Amino acid sequence: MKAKLILFLTLVVSYCAAFAQTPKAIEAEKGLIKISVMYPYAEGKTFNMTYYQTKHMPMVAAYLGTNLQKYTIDKGLSAGMPGQPLPFAAIGTFYVKSLSEYQSAIKPHLDAIRADFPNYTNITPVILVSEVIK
Amino acid sequence: MKAKLILFLTLVVSYCAAFAQTPKAIEAEKGLIKISVMYPYAEGKTFNMTYYQTKHMPMVAAYLGTNLQKYTIDKGLSAGMPGQPLPFAAIGTFYVKSLSEYQSAIKPHLDAIRADFPNYTNITPVILVSEVIK
Repeated sequence: MKAKLILFLTLVVSYCAAFAQTPKAIEAEKGLIKISVMYPYAEGKTFNMTYYQTKHMPMVAAYLGTNLQKYTIDKGLSAGMPGQPLPFAAIGTFYVKSLSEYQSAIKPHLDAIRADFPNYTNITPVILVSEVIK
Repeated sequence: MKAKLILFLTLVVSYCAAFAQTPKAIEAEKGLIKISVMYPYAEGKTFNMTYYQTKHMPMVAAYLGTNLQKYTIDKGLSAGMPGQPLPFAAIGTFYVKSLSEYQSAIKPHLDAIRADFPNYTNITPVILVSEVIK
């Protein structure tokens, strides 16, 4: 009887824990700082997504240590309205806990990061620092 | 003895399920389509984040049904380099499974969405459609 009760309680707690995981994962980004490296698209601009994904982004990510919560890569497809130019060819985003820690970690590697640009693009990126509100 | 074995197996399965949840949640965005509504910052431009977060974004999200996987809101803080202008005051992003479903769902509400703009901003947004590569 006691064993059955324990089994029942274990099941209840396990299911609660499993379902509680989803909103936790969704809300986990709130309050994080995003550094978005945005590559504006224009005629004659090139971008090698394979190199960016397999070489450049992992290299930069490796400089950031445990401050880095995750990083994402977006491939620009189109503008919102037909006939409008594509705003960005690609966007790479680092999600970090601390902006100042990110800046300290990146600083000694800035030359190496910039020297890698010509290996995948001829676009000068625009950088946005933002806070995840939701 | 049998009850103890069941209890043990339940615990093992539960823990596996709990830990399996995290990578699943992280990789869940790959392949999704993002519609990013980006509000370029400039002198004299205003943006009411409270209205945007509590009224505008929930209104648009409600039009999208089960195609919408999640939506996020970013508040622009600064450019990547000191002295550079802030590129965007805010970015609202819808993560959807199907772009064509998104377009069909939004079309009948475009006038209502645009009519709501003056309630929180005097910025004309730039829209980027992108694919989550990583």
